This record gives sequence, structure tokens and C-alpha cells, in this order.
Amino acid sequence: MEVVVITKRGTLIGRMQPIHNGHISVIKETLKEMDEIIIGIGSAQISHTIENPFTAGERILMLSKALTEHNIDPSRYYIIPLEDIACNSLWVAHVKMLTPPFTKIYSGNPLVKELFQENHYDVITPPLFNRKEYSGTEVRRRMLNNGNWEKLIPKSVTKIIKDINGVERIKYLNQKEVSQL
Amino acid sequence: MEVVVITKRGTLIGRMQPIHNGHISVIKETLKEMDEIIIGIGSAQISHTIENPFTAGERILMLSKALTEHNIDPSRYYIIPLEDIACNSLWVAHVKMLTPPFTKIYSGNPLVKELFQENHYDVITPPLFNRKEYSGTEVRRRMLNNGNWEKLIPKSVTKIIKDINGVERIKYLNQKEVSQL
Amino acid sequence: MEVVVITKRGTLIGRMQPIHNGHISVIKETLKEMDEIIIGIGSAQISHTIENPFTAGERILMLSKALTEHNIDPSRYYIIPLEDIACNSLWVAHVKMLTPPFTKIYSGNPLVKELFQENHYDVITPPLFNRKEYSGTEVRRRMLNNGNWEKLIPKSVTKIIKDINGVERIKYLNQKEVSQL
Amino acid sequence: MEVVVITKRGTLIGRMQPIHNGHISVIKETLKEMDEIIIGIGSAQISHTIENPFTAGERILMLSKALTEHNIDPSRYYIIPLEDIACNSLWVAHVKMLTPPFTKIYSGNPLVKELFQENHYDVITPPLFNRKEYSGTEVRRRMLNNGNWEKLIPKSVTKIIKDINGVERIKYLNQKEVSQL
Amino acid sequence: MEVVVITKRGTLIGRMQPIHNGHISVIKETLKEMDEIIIGIGSAQISHTIENPFTAGERILMLSKALTEHNIDPSRYYIIPLEDIACNSLWVAHVKMLTPPFTKIYSGNPLVKELFQENHYDVITPPLFNRKEYSGTEVRRRMLNNGNWEKLIPKSVTKIIKDINGVERIKYLNQKEVSQL
Amino acid sequence: MEVVVITKRGTLIGRMQPIHNGHISVIKETLKEMDEIIIGIGSAQISHTIENPFTAGERILMLSKALTEHNIDPSRYYIIPLEDIACNSLWVAHVKMLTPPFTKIYSGNPLVKELFQENHYDVITPPLFNRKEYSGTEVRRRMLNNGNWEKLIPKSVTKIIKDINGVERIKYLNQKEVSQL
Repeated sequence: MEVVVITKRGTLIGRMQPIHNGHISVIKETLKEMDEIIIGIGSAQISHTIENPFTAGERILMLSKALTEHNIDPSRYYIIPLEDIACNSLWVAHVKMLTPPFTKIYSGNPLVKELFQENHYDVITPPLFNRKEYSGTEVRRRMLNNGNWEKLIPKSVTKIIKDINGVERIKYLNQKEVSQL
Repeated sequence: MEVVVITKRGTLIGRMQPIHNGHISVIKETLKEMDEIIIGIGSAQISHTIENPFTAGERILMLSKALTEHNIDPSRYYIIPLEDIACNSLWVAHVKMLTPPFTKIYSGNPLVKELFQENHYDVITPPLFNRKEYSGTEVRRRMLNNGNWEKLIPKSVTKIIKDINGVERIKYLNQKEVSQL
Repeated sequence: MEVVVITKRGTLIGRMQPIHNGHISVIKETLKEMDEIIIGIGSAQISHTIENPFTAGERILMLSKALTEHNIDPSRYYIIPLEDIACNSLWVAHVKMLTPPFTKIYSGNPLVKELFQENHYDVITPPLFNRKEYSGTEVRRRMLNNGNWEKLIPKSVTKIIKDINGVERIKYLNQKEVSQL
Repeated sequence: MEVVVITKRGTLIGRMQPIHNGHISVIKETLKEMDEIIIGIGSAQISHTIENPFTAGERILMLSKALTEHNIDPSRYYIIPLEDIACNSLWVAHVKMLTPPFTKIYSGNPLVKELFQENHYDVITPPLFNRKEYSGTEVRRRMLNNGNWEKLIPKSVTKIIKDINGVERIKYLNQKEVSQL
Repeated sequence: MEVVVITKRGTLIGRMQPIHNGHISVIKETLKEMDEIIIGIGSAQISHTIENPFTAGERILMLSKALTEHNIDPSRYYIIPLEDIACNSLWVAHVKMLTPPFTKIYSGNPLVKELFQENHYDVITPPLFNRKEYSGTEVRRRMLNNGNWEKLIPKSVTKIIKDINGVERIKYLNQKEVSQL
Repeated sequence: MEVVVITKRGTLIGRMQPIHNGHISVIKETLKEMDEIIIGIGSAQISHTIENPFTAGERILMLSKALTEHNIDPSRYYIIPLEDIACNSLWVAHVKMLTPPFTKIYSGNPLVKELFQENHYDVITPPLFNRKEYSGTEVRRRMLNNGNWEKLIPKSVTKIIKDINGVERIKYLNQKEVSQL
């Protein structure tokens, strides 16, 4: 009986475009309270936009390597891509379908919190860690403006972004359309 | 033969977030002209947003109780949830699939009117009843600002909104996100 | 508080292709136990097949007229079309989104029962009423074979099926394809 | 006014897996009655199965080259891929959305005929041309059994099937699964 | 072997709301470099909005007649409607599924270019032809403001737009909503 | 550069209803050849049927615990749920979107092999390990017939199936429908 009943499991969801140091800090903090955590990669179906440059597969790779870099025990987390769905009313059931059983959700998003509360989950707002710099928006802004984005993210994530030419991709997507088609 | 051929049936569609006194007045007015009416609950799949706080099921309950409160004969109307679809060109066929046969559509929305006109329906713009106050936008605005929203809607709808903690929901959803995930 | 908390509400789901006397008996029986019932029209998106000849809108019309014929108080039921969805895991949330709050589900289908039980609903198997004759399969079989299908269904449903040329439709669909396209 | 009103336009729909001599004969016959025809490639989204080996794009190429081979005036036809949709009730609107205006539909399929008749189109059953041999099922059967499939289809279609290794594809797909995953 | 291997085929994609002289010039230019071209009608599922007034079927008709008007050899092009899809990562495979094999893509849109480059296609930015006037936005603007839109588009397209009351449609859709539903 | 270029990564896909000893053997074998593997949980959206009793989340949990039980280094695999899609032609792009970059696919399924071969992946048929017993079909058959299913699967998977009442679920779903709705 113990796996389901006794293991304390909590869920965190983020788009992680890309993974940054703030994600790592929140994950470490959550692992102090939980036996295992589920890390949902949100908007998994979206990629190749300025706000969402990376595919779900690329983000899974980044997160996986970043957690290894930080010596976080891999038997304590699950990384699961979560596609958006059209109906907010179905979101909790959708997450539940794709994840091991859990009872706590860590989120600062009012919609996520409201939906899980209505479904009787414990909802916890995770603490913030240097939020002004450690944010996906700031990382992407620096990528577009040749700023120092590398210092905001784990080294292993930097490496992957370079391997896949991630900065070139976001700059390319940011070009003005030149077309009359 | 008379059910299909002789019964005069008309359709009204609204998001009804939530049902207000304007809806009731339009429904009463339409019932003066039609034998039976179909009331479509639009954007049925959307809920838990500031603009669309209530689920289709909650809106069906509200409308049903409000019409009973106003002593409108239940054998004269059908309440039918209508989900949005991606293609405007399929909208008329979608509505037709989900509703008893009808020949008239009551709407003030140019897109709805255009689509039904192209499909040879009679299109009628219903009269307005104190539109400035009797509007979903105004009701939701007052909910967020502790205004007197109750006076704009039927008593039975107020009761349901209180039962489901509807005002708390919309206020909760209106909070600023506090998250770096 | 009483609407949500005190009203005892139960849900029945059937494809109703078409509505027959068995449906009416089950509905009457259920209304002895419940204050209000929700009648879900299943597989609402399917029509024009041998197994599912009628559209959701036609079935809503049939059911509504049949319940009036049987003098069932219309303030005690809600008729709601329910489209199938791909994921069984989302089915309960899908039904919940489209219906007023309820706590009991009446069904003889193992999948429906399992899904609602896992979501902590009371599940009740409704009694059978002359199941051999009062079944959609039997009604459709008689339609195709010029049998006496009328005696298995309410008079008002017979009338609607004749108005919409329902028997011609099912016979037409039953023809062999003659095509090399 | 004449394009829409005066041009007589008819529609034919087939899966064309692959295009065979029967299709060509029906198209020629239809062009005797119509000014222009629309040729819908049905089940456009399906490919890589035994019954549906070719993609929509491959079928568009085959049909286009076959009609050129038969000296059919290209200003008199439109080739349009049509994906299947879940709801029969929306099928006519779906076809209408993707095609130039037309008034006649040529089909031997009872469902297609019923749906278009209910929407007030003229429905015509096209004649058959050596249906036993000129059929997609027969062509695919011969491909799997090293029979003479080439004589059933236009030369240009044979050429394309060879270019894309179509026979190898269908034989490969026909293998038994060897897996315990 | 030559159809697939030797024929030089390139693809152009545009929403063509509506087709204008700029489209025709780009198509003519592209045909100087390619043996055959594929012309994708983008956002095929969208119609009846101010930005996208025409259905895919109407746009196919317009383009077809315009190319005939300009004496472009119909055996050298394919006109194919392309619906939008939710995932950018699947876009190239989606286009590939619906089109004859091609190796070059002509586009000025950074997202399209990035996606096809990542899939190893040759990407070419087509030249601009009087882009300020020859643009869908400008044509629709003039339609709404009674300007001279006819001079920006082929005569045959003007005729079709008049036949289908296209200008009335866009003006009608542009009306302010008058409704409290 | 080394993550993407040098790491040898291969992909295995299975429905894993449930995970059995055959899966573990294939995974161990594959890890002899690859640096890292991606394990796709196929038909992730399906659950609560006789053939597919478990949700994707339950299968992720099972697989994760089974691999830990077998002391397989968690930094060498990624477990990723893969929902089915309607179009075979999009399958490879769909898998690619959701996974870290890989070059080899291990599969005994002709469709999967054909699709990946057409997209220039290396395709390898994995060896079989006591396939007659180590198969999902056999495990589910024994569950329904009170056979010794436990000996076919890892201990940790047995434990989870008991925790979630998995055998009761599959037996319940296997009951005959008793309903006239």
C-alpha cells in the first residue's frame, strides 16, 4: 500500500522557456517538503515562437541535464510534458491522467490554484528566488539583445542551447516579415 | 406533420456569463413571436476566466431557475450548450446538429447574422433593454468591485452564484500571478 | 444554500437512438428517488449511421416531447447533449463541466460506472423494463424490416420520426454502396 | 454574375488509393454533363495503411498527371484534399467550405447521398466502368500479390508509384508485427 | 524516375485574402526558376472575419481563374488548401503530407523559413512587387472604405468577389455588435 | 557540441499495459548499444479499457519504479508519454517534438519502422525475450482469469497495480453491460 498512500508527492508546472536558476531553486525547495515531485513542462505543444522558442523535447533534455548538474536524485522526480487543452474545466483531470498520483500542487498562477482547489488539492505558492533576473522573459530578452543570459541558467542548459543553435533560432524568429504573400 | 412544419421555433445564443435581466427580457419578448425558442449557451467549453467565470453546467442551472422564477412555461424553450468551433463556415451546421429544427435566429452579432443569412435563415435583431446595466460585462465588473451586481440579475441566479462561491472565484482569478515557474 | 446542497440530483446518460418506452420508465423510476435529474444525450456528435440515425437536436426534441406526453414536470429535468471524447480519464470532468452539480449517476455500463466510482460518485444500476423489446437496437431493427416499431416508443416520438422522414433515412443509409470512386 | 450562377459545377469524391482507370472514366463522363468539376480526395489525412497507402499529396500528384495523360483540360477541374471529420452532420458544410460553389454531387455512397440530399443538392449516381477490376481494393490486392496492377491504372500513375516505392511501402506495411513492446 | 527526382518543384504559401496582383507577380517569377509550383492557400479553415473574409473554396476559385486570366500553364501548378495546425513543430510534416514532393520553399515569413530550414529545405525570400499597394490588408481596407480595390487585383477575381457579394460581406462583418445577449 | 552530436540516443515505444519483464529485457539490451534511451509510453491518452486499463501517469510510475528495481541508471533514460495522433504522416514529427534528439528507433511494428525509415532514421528490430509469456496481452489475460500474472512483471509493478486496485478495475471493465439506456 505504501507507494500511493505514503509517498508524499507534489506537482510543479512551468513552461520553462528555458529552464533557469529560479526553476532549480524552487525544485530544490519543494524537494525538502516532498518525497517525490512531478515537474510538468507546460504548453508542451508550443515551440518556435519568441515567447516559446524551444520544443518540449528540448526542454525535457535541458531540465534533465540541469537537475543532474545540481546533483538532484533522479529517483525523486518525474518530468512530464503537458499540452494545453481548450477547457479549463478539464485541466485537472488532464494533468491527473498524465502523472503519478499526487496531493499537493505548487503554483503561483491564480487559474491553476483555483482549478486545483476546486478539486480538493492542497495548493502552495512557492517562494520566489531573485525573480527579476531568474525569469524566462528576462532570459529571452537577453538572448535577443546579446546580454548575459548564460549567468541566469544552469551551465548544462547553456550548452544545450548552444548545441541546438537556440539563440540563432530566437533571433531569426524575431525578424520582421518581408512578404506580400 | 405539424411539429416540424407548423411549430414556429426561433434561436437565441448568448454566453450568459452570467444570466442577467436583459436576457430574461429578450427571452420574454421572443416568446411573444415564437411558439418555442431554443436558447444556446455560447462558448460552452470556456470557464474559469475573468470574462467567462462560469461553466456551461452552472449557466444551464442559472438559466433554468431564472426562467422558472419568471414563470416562463418550460415546455416552450430548450436550453442547449454550444461549444465554439474553429471554422466560422461550419458554425450554422454545428448549431443545427445540436438543436431542434428552427427557422429564425435572434442576434445582434454581425458574424452570427451573416452566417445564418448566407444559410437562408430569417435573422432578427432583438430589442435592447437597459443595455448599459443589463450586460454580463457590467455584472462581472461589479462583482470585482463589490458593487451591487445582485440588482442586475434574477434572484435565483444570485442564489446559485452564492452557492457556488462565484464572486470569490472571479476575484481569485483576477489576482496577479506570483510565480517564476 | 439549498439549491446546491439540498437538491438531490442524479444523472442518466443514453444515446437514445431513438427514445423508447424503456427510457421513459427508467426516467420515471429515477424521479421517485431524486428531486431533479440530468438526462445526458450520449454520442451527441454522431448521426446519420445505422446505429445512430438521429442528430442530437432531433433526439432533444423527441425526448422533450415524450416527457411532456408522459406529464413529467419539466422543472425536474435537464436535457443536455454530451459529445464523446477521446480520453476516458477526462469523461467525468467533461460531464461535470456541462451539467448542474449532481452526486448520483444511474448507469448499467461498466466503463461509466468505473469512471464515476473512481471519482467518488454514487453509482446506481437502474432496473430494466422489458429490455428485449424496449431497446434502441430493436427499434432500429424493426424500422429496417417494416416491423411494428411504433409500439415500442412514445407517440410523440413516432410523430417526430415521421415528420423528419426518419425511417426513410435509416433505410437509405442501409443501402449497399454502388461506386468505384 | 455568370461564374457562380451560370457555370455548371459538380463534385466527385473518392479516396483514390490509388487513382485507377475507373476514376478516369467517371471523370470523363461527368465532364460531358458539367462545365467544371471538383474532384475531392477523400480521407486526405490518412496514409501508410494497407487500405490507404498513399498521402494526399501523392494522390494529388497522381491524379494531376493522370488527367494530363488523358488530355483533360485542366481549366475544367479542381483537385481538393478533403480530410474526414467526426460529425456526419457537418460534412456538407465542410466540403462547401473547401470548394468552389457547386450544385450537383456524383456519388454511389448512401451516406454522402443522404447528407447532400438533406442539404438540397442534386445527387447523381455515376455509371460503373468494369468495376470488378477498376477498383482500389483490386489494385492494392495485386500489388501485395505481385499481380498485374499496372494495367488497371494510368501509365503516369504507375510511374509515380514506382518513383515513391509505393509497392515496397504497401508490402512493408503488410508484414506481421514482431515485437513485445 | 524523373517525376520525383528531376522535376524542380517549389512551394509558396499565402492566405490570399484575396488574391492580388502581387501574388500573380510572385507566382510568375517563381515559375521562371521552377518546373512546377505548389501554391498553398494558408489558414484554409478561417473565413468570415475582417482579416479573412473568404472561404478556402472561394480563394481556390479566385486563384484558379486569375492564373487562367494571366495565361499561366495549369499543368505547372497545384493549388492546395492548408489548414493551420496548433503545433509549429508539426507544420512542415503537415504541408508535406498534403503536397507533391518539393525541395524549395518561397517565403518571407521568419517562422515558415525557420521551420523549413530546420528540415533541410532550400528557403528563398521572393522579391516584392509594389508591396504597399499589392497587399491583402490594403485591398480589404479599400473595400471597407469604398476605395479603388479593383485595380489591385486581377479582373477575374473582381468578378468573383462581386458574384459572391464579397464587399457586402466584409462591410457587414465590420458592423458594431448591437446585442446584450 | 557533444550532447547533441556525440551522445548516442535511441527510442523505444510501447503501450506498456502494463510494464512486464520483456520490456525490462529490451531496455537493458538497448542500453548496451546506446548512451541514453528515450522510452515512449504509447497511446498515452487511452485508459480504462480491457486492452488499455492503466493511465499514462500510472504507467510512468510503474516504469520508473521497475527501472529503479532493476538498478538501471536513471540518468540514462527519459520516460515520455506519447498520445496517438490521427495522421500517420505526422507521427515522426510528433515524436520528435516531444523527445530529446535521437537517431535510432527500436521497434518491431511495421508502420513505425516504415515511417521512421522514410524520415531517414536507423530502425532496429529489438530481440524477443520469452515473448509468449512476457506480453501485455498475456498479463491482462491472467488478471482476468486469476492466473499468475505477478511472475510476468517486476515486483514494483505488482505493488503499484495492487495499490491502485488494477486487477479489480480490469475485471470490473470486463463485466457485461446491463442497461437499456
